[in-house]
Amino acid sequence: MNAPLILDLFGVFFFAMSGSLLAARKGFDLVGSLLLASLASLGGGVVRDLIIDTQPAAFSNPAYLIPPALATILVYFLFSGVEKVSKLLVLFDAGGLALFCIVGTLKAMDFGLNPVAAVLLGVTTAVGGGLLRDVVANEIPQLFDPRDIYAIPAFLGAVLTALLVWAEWFNVVTGIVVAVVVFALRVLAWRHGWHAPLASAGRRRREAP
Amino acid sequence: MNAPLILDLFGVFFFAMSGSLLAARKGFDLVGSLLLASLASLGGGVVRDLIIDTQPAAFSNPAYLIPPALATILVYFLFSGVEKVSKLLVLFDAGGLALFCIVGTLKAMDFGLNPVAAVLLGVTTAVGGGLLRDVVANEIPQLFDPRDIYAIPAFLGAVLTALLVWAEWFNVVTGIVVAVVVFALRVLAWRHGWHAPLASAGRRRREAP
Amino acid sequence: MNAPLILDLFGVFFFAMSGSLLAARKGFDLVGSLLLASLASLGGGVVRDLIIDTQPAAFSNPAYLIPPALATILVYFLFSGVEKVSKLLVLFDAGGLALFCIVGTLKAMDFGLNPVAAVLLGVTTAVGGGLLRDVVANEIPQLFDPRDIYAIPAFLGAVLTALLVWAEWFNVVTGIVVAVVVFALRVLAWRHGWHAPLASAGRRRREAP
Repeated sequence: MNAPLILDLFGVFFFAMSGSLLAARKGFDLVGSLLLASLASLGGGVVRDLIIDTQPAAFSNPAYLIPPALATILVYFLFSGVEKVSKLLVLFDAGGLALFCIVGTLKAMDFGLNPVAAVLLGVTTAVGGGLLRDVVANEIPQLFDPRDIYAIPAFLGAVLTALLVWAEWFNVVTGIVVAVVVFALRVLAWRHGWHAPLASAGRRRREAP
Repeated sequence: MNAPLILDLFGVFFFAMSGSLLAARKGFDLVGSLLLASLASLGGGVVRDLIIDTQPAAFSNPAYLIPPALATILVYFLFSGVEKVSKLLVLFDAGGLALFCIVGTLKAMDFGLNPVAAVLLGVTTAVGGGLLRDVVANEIPQLFDPRDIYAIPAFLGAVLTALLVWAEWFNVVTGIVVAVVVFALRVLAWRHGWHAPLASAGRRRREAP
Repeated sequence: MNAPLILDLFGVFFFAMSGSLLAARKGFDLVGSLLLASLASLGGGVVRDLIIDTQPAAFSNPAYLIPPALATILVYFLFSGVEKVSKLLVLFDAGGLALFCIVGTLKAMDFGLNPVAAVLLGVTTAVGGGLLRDVVANEIPQLFDPRDIYAIPAFLGAVLTALLVWAEWFNVVTGIVVAVVVFALRVLAWRHGWHAPLASAGRRRREAP
């Protein structure tokens, strides 16, 4: 297995954990846990591959089905407290975000997309699975929560990846550095409530809902 | 018309009925009924065909537009009681599920996908349209309802179809047997509340929401 | 730039404004505003291009990223009152609807789809972005609001476009006439509560929810 595939599978596992944890919090059953884990972890990549116009990796390589199954089993046996679940959900989601913004950008560049499109597709891959997860579970997407930042770390990671590839400096070490930066930025923003200005300046002093 | 196309059109009609019945229950208008019928009945197949990378059948063959129109008209004139609507919705949805897990798996194998991917795509076809229907109508998807099982019958039907094709035993008779088994399993699970364990073992004794 | 591209970019801008205005009304932040503007304005076209099987325009031409950015900035500085936001949202959405039903139908016919599929794809393009916008923002989609009509003007615009192209009468002038008709019909329906019959005739005399 090459490095991007391993990174990708770890990203899939992290998002799968976020899906199974959300399923546990919503009171879904084991099958719902497996499906939400699959949608969260494979959905962003399927959308990316449809746009690139290549067969979605999740359907061509059965290895992609292992992380959702593993996450479902782990969550079933290990997690129960609601508080812990919410925190772990954000951490795993941040791990997936950090890896997918890199993998999505790399794959788009491999297939010859221009750098702007590659960054856009990296962000789409990173935020897509989590968005699908939250929408089908009828939650307000983390992506739109105004109390912290979510897409900015993914965007930063995609831009850094595109720049490193362009400069021919992208390798396992620099890739891991980018992932750590994205993960740390997302988690720190969540812990400390770092947030962006609201969509309308006239509402800046009001309380966000 | 060949057998798979007829099966497919019946599946489309069943899911279209589920869409129009949900539209009636939600107080949507006739146009909303037609759109929800179309999304429920054609959405799963469109996703399947995009993943297979062939032109979606709903767009290449106008025959696929007849079932949603028919369902919209039937629901308009025939159904009104809310109770009856909810029961019929589950029955038609189960009929669509039974046919689509077979048709989706067959089409994926026809296009040369490996059996694991074909089963995955059969399940995606079967549960996709209903998921889209429930999400856009702002309902908790039937797929995630922990009070009964929904995806397991579809998975069973997809696996049986893949095995029958592999053994060269798939024909109209065995296909109908698989559909009847899937339909019966789904309806019995709904009637008797057969359900899977919850996503987290630590919550098993609590009441499902 | 050719005429369809300019029409398309104006449609993108109108839907982007509807997305940013909805983000402002929901209390999302600036990043959420940019993302909702992008989803509303580019989502319908991406689905259309995936079905046509061509690379989505939003990913091949960076010009498509300007309207969402512009809309995000305009809404940030100019809009604050909730009442005004709701009205403007409907107006911009109607503008996008009017242009996208034309552009979607034209592009589908350019790629050789049959006229029925082209009309279907025109409607999908026109209603798709707004549907995605409302679903991810956890709103009841405007598309399904039984108090006025939404898809009928888009359907009319797609049919008129297909007929004009077939008769070889489609040009900038007739295109603008179609857009004005669709826009006017949608806005008048919204202002005066023109609505279609409910999905079930037995419920006609009840109050819509």
